[in-house]
Amino acid sequence: MRLLFVPDAGEIYPPGFQTSVEPGPVAEPLCGAFRPGHFRGVATVVTKLFHIVQPDVAFFGQKDLQQCAVIRQLVRDLNLAVEVVTVPTVREPDGLAMSSRNSYLSSEEGERARCLSQGLFAAQEAYLAGERDSQRLVETARAQITEVDQLQYLQLVDAETLEAIPGRVERPAALCVAASVGTTRLIDSVLLISLPAGAADRAQRLFSEPIAQQDTVAADGLPVS
Amino acid sequence: MRLLFVPDAGEIYPPGFQTSVEPGPVAEPLCGAFRPGHFRGVATVVTKLFHIVQPDVAFFGQKDLQQCAVIRQLVRDLNLAVEVVTVPTVREPDGLAMSSRNSYLSSEEGERARCLSQGLFAAQEAYLAGERDSQRLVETARAQITEVDQLQYLQLVDAETLEAIPGRVERPAALCVAASVGTTRLIDSVLLISLPAGAADRAQRLFSEPIAQQDTVAADGLPVS
Repeated sequence: MRLLFVPDAGEIYPPGFQTSVEPGPVAEPLCGAFRPGHFRGVATVVTKLFHIVQPDVAFFGQKDLQQCAVIRQLVRDLNLAVEVVTVPTVREPDGLAMSSRNSYLSSEEGERARCLSQGLFAAQEAYLAGERDSQRLVETARAQITEVDQLQYLQLVDAETLEAIPGRVERPAALCVAASVGTTRLIDSVLLISLPAGAADRAQRLFSEPIAQQDTVAADGLPVS
Repeated sequence: MRLLFVPDAGEIYPPGFQTSVEPGPVAEPLCGAFRPGHFRGVATVVTKLFHIVQPDVAFFGQKDLQQCAVIRQLVRDLNLAVEVVTVPTVREPDGLAMSSRNSYLSSEEGERARCLSQGLFAAQEAYLAGERDSQRLVETARAQITEVDQLQYLQLVDAETLEAIPGRVERPAALCVAASVGTTRLIDSVLLISLPAGAADRAQRLFSEPIAQQDTVAADGLPVS
């Protein structure tokens, strides 16, 4: 059975509504620095959603990496009885992370936007090949991200706390980018996770292959052919 | 069966803890104005408690009237599946609201502290006798609260939102006081609720009689003899 829960705004924020869930330092860098209050809104409405729906498991896309981190932190901090699962970013055949905002891109902008994922993939490849210097990994990505109109941030951070990693990358990390293409703000990220030698290929496949080459499942868990 | 849940601080606030529940305007007046951050702490830890214990019903004492209002508001705003019940303030035979802080009072201070409940009861009596002017009700209480060392606030507020009621009292209200006796800060409150004529006596009994004249129940619901 599939159910959609689609309340209207007045049902979620009735007159007199005033309590919020305030995330901590995990919400401060990256998008948090550019969108004041955004993650407070996310944390509040997701807490409400969890209380209303009372799910056993909730799935969030890795593309919104900071959102995932904020939600994991609030679930842990507020002792919510829900398991949060992060699912890999679904991508267009050319690598662009899927987003409702992609529909705002002209076809010329869409082509330029491709450089975001290409830059991240290049850094991820360098990482999997053994590069551990944070600055060089960022530069590897930066070298490819040449066609956006404004680069908001490109940062290598701890995958859980989102604290910047300035020197050597020796714990699970993420490389995160936000940029404008035309008037559209896009974000993307890849994980930089150290794996046993044999597993590197699989990680590569998991994290960086476009969706056309991945198995896709529908909401009922059956493969989409 | 009775169970006590007594976690230590490290269990509730482990390293890395950073998310808080931020109450809105209901936490701003009265104690909120004198104890910055206090109700954020209350809202956060009570939300955690509700998630851990998952109670159907939770009971809070009316003495901490603003705490009750903050918790009711957060339960409503965050869609928590718990029923909040406010129970009448339990009082010493002389009317002093019971509090763990009363043990800090010398016997001389304890006698002086009695004027707090006496002032509130006097205003409640005037209210039940028909007085609806907010200022006169406050003055009636104030006239008796003469033996405290510092009066922090004495305010007549909406019983739900805790907004000040400046003119006529035409909705459920509360008269709230905070004062220091010696070095001990004490709070108390009474409800000012309009009832059908016949019910006024009962309200009087419910809200203002000392505990010695009330029925008392133990945690198992059996009367204490």
